[in-house]
Amino acid sequence: MQSICAVEGVTAAGIKEGKYGLALIKAEGTAAAAFTKNIARAGPVILMQERIKHGRLAAIISNSGCANALTGQRGIDDAVEMASIAAEELSLDPREVGVASTGVISRYLNLPLIKDQCHRIAPLLERSPLAEISAAKAIMTTDLVEKHSLVRREGFTIGGICKGSGMIAPNMGTMLGYVYTDAEISASDLQVALKTAVKRSFNRVVVDGDTSTNDVVFCTATSTAGKVPLNEFTAALEECCVSLGRQIASDGEGATKLIEVIVRGARSEDEADLAARTVVGSPLVKTAIYGEDPNWGRIVAAAGRSGAEFDPEKVSCWISGSGLKAAVCERGVLTEDLKTAKASLAGREVQIELDLAAGNGKAIAWGCDLTEKYVEINGKYTT
Amino acid sequence: MQSICAVEGVTAAGIKEGKYGLALIKAEGTAAAAFTKNIARAGPVILMQERIKHGRLAAIISNSGCANALTGQRGIDDAVEMASIAAEELSLDPREVGVASTGVISRYLNLPLIKDQCHRIAPLLERSPLAEISAAKAIMTTDLVEKHSLVRREGFTIGGICKGSGMIAPNMGTMLGYVYTDAEISASDLQVALKTAVKRSFNRVVVDGDTSTNDVVFCTATSTAGKVPLNEFTAALEECCVSLGRQIASDGEGATKLIEVIVRGARSEDEADLAARTVVGSPLVKTAIYGEDPNWGRIVAAAGRSGAEFDPEKVSCWISGSGLKAAVCERGVLTEDLKTAKASLAGREVQIELDLAAGNGKAIAWGCDLTEKYVEINGKYTT
Repeated sequence: MQSICAVEGVTAAGIKEGKYGLALIKAEGTAAAAFTKNIARAGPVILMQERIKHGRLAAIISNSGCANALTGQRGIDDAVEMASIAAEELSLDPREVGVASTGVISRYLNLPLIKDQCHRIAPLLERSPLAEISAAKAIMTTDLVEKHSLVRREGFTIGGICKGSGMIAPNMGTMLGYVYTDAEISASDLQVALKTAVKRSFNRVVVDGDTSTNDVVFCTATSTAGKVPLNEFTAALEECCVSLGRQIASDGEGATKLIEVIVRGARSEDEADLAARTVVGSPLVKTAIYGEDPNWGRIVAAAGRSGAEFDPEKVSCWISGSGLKAAVCERGVLTEDLKTAKASLAGREVQIELDLAAGNGKAIAWGCDLTEKYVEINGKYTT
Repeated sequence: MQSICAVEGVTAAGIKEGKYGLALIKAEGTAAAAFTKNIARAGPVILMQERIKHGRLAAIISNSGCANALTGQRGIDDAVEMASIAAEELSLDPREVGVASTGVISRYLNLPLIKDQCHRIAPLLERSPLAEISAAKAIMTTDLVEKHSLVRREGFTIGGICKGSGMIAPNMGTMLGYVYTDAEISASDLQVALKTAVKRSFNRVVVDGDTSTNDVVFCTATSTAGKVPLNEFTAALEECCVSLGRQIASDGEGATKLIEVIVRGARSEDEADLAARTVVGSPLVKTAIYGEDPNWGRIVAAAGRSGAEFDPEKVSCWISGSGLKAAVCERGVLTEDLKTAKASLAGREVQIELDLAAGNGKAIAWGCDLTEKYVEINGKYTT
């Protein structure tokens, strides 16, 4: 097993019929969640921001094809009903069922379909390699590949699935992540660990800079493995989320290359974060990487407008990939190794390293190149 | 005359040889300036931020083809020398010569070429329709059209030229604006008026969200028309700058449509500004407009992540163009007039109006659609 079903206590099932999919995941335990920061929030997000305060989940029901977003009070009511459908099918407390949606916005949920799909897949819940794949596939929209992550540590395991590849045509897409662990951890500790992990993973993935109305990450701890050191758990959770975040960036709409931007030497982690996300989100950097052009001026200019404080005359920058690494700028001075830099951009993964020489803050962000295909996906195929 | 030469006291000349251009504009008076907020600033920007404090300009020398950016102390020294070249040719105090550059970054200025071009065009300085055109053409890089603006009021005139069409291949572009008036106005009043005008015009133009290292707007008042009411002057200056800003958006790299986003009902002008700039800069909104898809969910979602506070359930949105206007969402509820909305997107100019229903703040921002051509310009043609 490669993700959630590797965790004891987790069973899963999924179905995809045309563009309408449904995933069910059953696992009881303490739980935490992270939500979109967009103030335009979908019905299930508004509901779960309240319900997660109890700190427990027994199951998750998650549909694709309809985002149940910008649907007003009816959207919230429908999310309540969707949770009840799963609760009834699985004999659970509906307040302990996580609910999330992704797909077309400003349409109402097809609740009869969801009820029917739920009824058909509930008997299929199991802990198996196929089960976790079917759940991961069920929540995909324009994703090209399903996304799994598994981190094993001495004494505990963390596994997760997610979907997302930008804000997606024909209307908008979403990042959904479901992470499970067998570690025993309190809901409040889990919330703190998840917040840190999400900040350093999903929140540092920039495909197009747009934020969905539906983004959510649920993390449930089944406790079967007993207590574990909190710092070890937090580090492992971050690793699991980073792996999932990288897979989202890599599957970005129209992407041909995964871009990893490492900023160090910032005055703080927050400033490193700002600079890394601005560089990886810059259309000029993204198009330059697509064109395999080691245009370091665009990189420094993007960092310069990010809000991070530094002296551009002291900046150093490296570009690496395809087993090559080239300094393109050392302490503000252009190095003439642009040939190696260009060659390093030829592969599927590219790394940009930026030393701002202003402190000890460090952050990594992930994104992808900007291609004609992105424009085609989001512009040419109209609703 | 359609821009700067309509202002008494202004003479201009320009030359463009291949990608290397030089503009000279002579006009003595009180002066103010606005500069890029990017902390990675080009040599001429660093120099002029100091020199403009004297509040006077007698001339401007401005080259295209080389941005003199990320060139360290030598870049600043070269900018000093460039000002001196013009000062010597025109017998002026070099501290009263404005200097600005645009073009390829991390290359040093070709000062012998600039000196030679300056020497050849200085005798051509005149106040004529052709003179202002030659100056406007001389500062173009990947601009497809030259940009002029003229605002006439009872008692005074304001005229301006500018260049800019995004951060431009092969390296980066820039927004340069040179505005003149015959009004008599103190340097400090001029600085305040210019700051407001730039905030409401150039700073609300989003082509790709990248900010150049070289952006500058100079405004010189020759005083020949005598004193004018400050509020009238400020409004006229804003109108002149808005016209130039719109022309930059319209000439955005790869653009097929000008997008104007009007946000009203925000809690403050600053929040309206945030929302308007975020909507017009959203890749998903830009690609939807390109595809002529009235996807109002993307518009509301972009406003929702902008930082402006509002209740998404109360938002109204209209789309207009080609003589049509359609409400796509009224107080949070989708209207079914998407057919009219789609037809309104067919033309060269599109207007999006968003009422956040949260207060009285209003702002307008301008941008353009995102097309495959943008990716091609910035990605495929490598350095």
